[in-house]
Amino acid sequence: MENKILLSEQEIPRFFYNIVADMPNKPLPPLHPGTRQPITPDLLEPLFPKELIQQEVSAERYIEIPRQVRDIYAKWRPSPLFRARGLEKLLDTPARIYYKYEGVSPAGSHKPNTAVAQAFYSKISGVKRIATETGAGQWGTALAYACQLFGLECEVFMVRVSYDQKPYRKIMMNTFGATVHASPSGQTAYGKKVLAENPDSSGSLGIAISEAIERAVSDPQSHYALGSVLNHVLLHQTIIGQEALLQMEKAGHMPDVVVAPFGGGSNFAGIAFPFLRLNLADDQQIRFIAVEPASCPKLTRGSFRYDFGDTAGMTPLLPMYTLGHDFIPSPIHAGGLRYHGAGVLVSQLLKDGLIEAVSQPQEPCFKAGLDFIRAEGIIPAPEATHAIATVIDEALKCRESGTEKTILFNLCGHGYFDMGAYASYMAGELTDPSVSEQEISASLSGTDQLQPG
Amino acid sequence: MENKILLSEQEIPRFFYNIVADMPNKPLPPLHPGTRQPITPDLLEPLFPKELIQQEVSAERYIEIPRQVRDIYAKWRPSPLFRARGLEKLLDTPARIYYKYEGVSPAGSHKPNTAVAQAFYSKISGVKRIATETGAGQWGTALAYACQLFGLECEVFMVRVSYDQKPYRKIMMNTFGATVHASPSGQTAYGKKVLAENPDSSGSLGIAISEAIERAVSDPQSHYALGSVLNHVLLHQTIIGQEALLQMEKAGHMPDVVVAPFGGGSNFAGIAFPFLRLNLADDQQIRFIAVEPASCPKLTRGSFRYDFGDTAGMTPLLPMYTLGHDFIPSPIHAGGLRYHGAGVLVSQLLKDGLIEAVSQPQEPCFKAGLDFIRAEGIIPAPEATHAIATVIDEALKCRESGTEKTILFNLCGHGYFDMGAYASYMAGELTDPSVSEQEISASLSGTDQLQPG
Repeated sequence: MENKILLSEQEIPRFFYNIVADMPNKPLPPLHPGTRQPITPDLLEPLFPKELIQQEVSAERYIEIPRQVRDIYAKWRPSPLFRARGLEKLLDTPARIYYKYEGVSPAGSHKPNTAVAQAFYSKISGVKRIATETGAGQWGTALAYACQLFGLECEVFMVRVSYDQKPYRKIMMNTFGATVHASPSGQTAYGKKVLAENPDSSGSLGIAISEAIERAVSDPQSHYALGSVLNHVLLHQTIIGQEALLQMEKAGHMPDVVVAPFGGGSNFAGIAFPFLRLNLADDQQIRFIAVEPASCPKLTRGSFRYDFGDTAGMTPLLPMYTLGHDFIPSPIHAGGLRYHGAGVLVSQLLKDGLIEAVSQPQEPCFKAGLDFIRAEGIIPAPEATHAIATVIDEALKCRESGTEKTILFNLCGHGYFDMGAYASYMAGELTDPSVSEQEISASLSGTDQLQPG
Repeated sequence: MENKILLSEQEIPRFFYNIVADMPNKPLPPLHPGTRQPITPDLLEPLFPKELIQQEVSAERYIEIPRQVRDIYAKWRPSPLFRARGLEKLLDTPARIYYKYEGVSPAGSHKPNTAVAQAFYSKISGVKRIATETGAGQWGTALAYACQLFGLECEVFMVRVSYDQKPYRKIMMNTFGATVHASPSGQTAYGKKVLAENPDSSGSLGIAISEAIERAVSDPQSHYALGSVLNHVLLHQTIIGQEALLQMEKAGHMPDVVVAPFGGGSNFAGIAFPFLRLNLADDQQIRFIAVEPASCPKLTRGSFRYDFGDTAGMTPLLPMYTLGHDFIPSPIHAGGLRYHGAGVLVSQLLKDGLIEAVSQPQEPCFKAGLDFIRAEGIIPAPEATHAIATVIDEALKCRESGTEKTILFNLCGHGYFDMGAYASYMAGELTDPSVSEQEISASLSGTDQLQPG
């Protein structure tokens, strides 16, 4: 009766899995905001290394992972797969619950999987630095770590609310040598504009992305890096699901349901896509549930349309589920999920009914997080508690129906920097912000002029 | 070229290793402070379960680990052994550096190894709760975790300076359901006495131990648990070294030097004793270096004599290297090393010249910690940085002499709750308190009346 399924370093995947090759409907192209025509890859060259631009538009099923990247993955990968026996017992459920634990990485989350790849390609393309945004700080920490490995400078625009909630996250980025600004900042023209309009702005990922892009385009020696949303980012995370597939096979149970929290899509895609392939290519019937916060409900209450990836409107127009690029989510503790849109690949899959989405309010997520701590001994990041809350819902349904399902979820990171949030929850002080239909409509109306044709 | 050596759950040790069986000079007995005669085990029965009292005085070489304890260990054990290739490269040393990483445990350190065993024995003996002290919080977190697993209440007296430095540690203990008081507290007669004399006392492990013992003896339904120093605690930690022995064999390199930080001895004993057996029983020549903080130098500047384990004088008299039970160490960030004495077994081994001790000031330890973060990507606890500083010293000696030695150290825990300390270091704000000979003499004079005969 094993508690964890481990793999050897030799079992680290050698290829990223590109789900585009298996999608029944290919994603719509990104559009140039001026011409409304599909963008050409050269438009992205000031921001990204050319290998990543190729990956962004690739339809190849498998893309080789560079040896140097695999060597770095081997410092912590393959990550362990755990059987959640404590949680199963607590819930008295016939369901088998497994979780892939990405909190063992140096940055404490799944984010280094793509950060290392992105920093590697930027390094070999010859730039000196990378600018990025971060919400809760997991992504910024990961990129800071990756840049340090390759001798690149790293500048992070951190959403103000998380910057204030999690001072130790900032320090951790500093220990890896990164420079961190609270966003909106006085460092960019766009940040200054936002601050002039609202000096108390709590910030958003959309604003921080605008600041980081502005910084990168103004410096020929700098690239920009995004921690989710884009196709190449989701691609890199598929090593999670590929490992989990091997591990579930070794455990002798394939999942009936796969659950992951949802911000921009990289966490969900990482665990889900290699299993989703079994549905698309092999007619299996696995369910996939993306869990978003009720206060930022683009998948469950947003609209599928073209929108900007950032707030200032610097990115190409992307076909996605969105709440509108002006949408500023409430300052919930799961800062990594406070993003107005969903990645293009995941949006298309949801539109085609190949995956499901649910939303969870903040308070039951922290309740689920605390149950998990006491049952399993691991402190989950607030983002990860969204998956746990839904896993518990599914496991309780199994108890009611007496069904012996296998549930797999991605425990994307630890919550050691979120103890203040757990303290607020335990003190009964957590607010649970909701969003009105009026707010969503108003925010979406800002995208009406962006639609093609 | 592997980065980490993993073991399977079946390779978790089945026995604790008791070094007493192999010591050339057996440790002197603890004495009753009134009679100055060796204490009888029944004196300890209000505090500890009888199995632990037996272990405390046992001379058996191997003591079986209960199945229930091994089952819990299997949630995170065997812990990984890493080759520190990044650090080797940074130092440009011919030395091979390995570290056993205990930060993967639920509490984030090696402490659950004994906490789980202690909570298990207390549970089967029928008590309802356990009282304890904690310094930096690693031990309190571990016992809170273990008590939660067995349905025991847990009350923690946390040294004031760490309570203030690390608020998130307290919250983490709360998430596991423990009650935490800053010590000296108003909860005990001894705490009140200390506060009356010095309302601003930063506390010490010695004071916190006195408070926890007072709490436990006043409640027949309560045991007391100690996180280091005692023979049975060191015994439980030997699973670390037993695993490391297997892992070093698999790596194909046996250590020439084994290094660990030193507070009360459990961390050091855990990694060192199973290797030290090779010297004692098999004539090998491995060096063992215990690293203590320069501001709490009992091994390098203390005296070998009988002293109390706590400040109030509630414990039996223990034969150990000590700075005197009244000694209040400076408020360094490595709170887990702020203890006036050394465990009896380690003290006897040092007296017999079978192990070595060095001290490190706080500032070079944090420098070593930051080097390690940037080279290896893992944030070490301040306690662990003491080992790293000495490992770096040894590795640089290897570079100077061109010697290809193998160095093993115990990376006893992560420093996610110590980012404030790293921030102070990076800002150049760390003070490096020293201790004068006068202070040590004055403090030791308080033990002059305690010596037998």
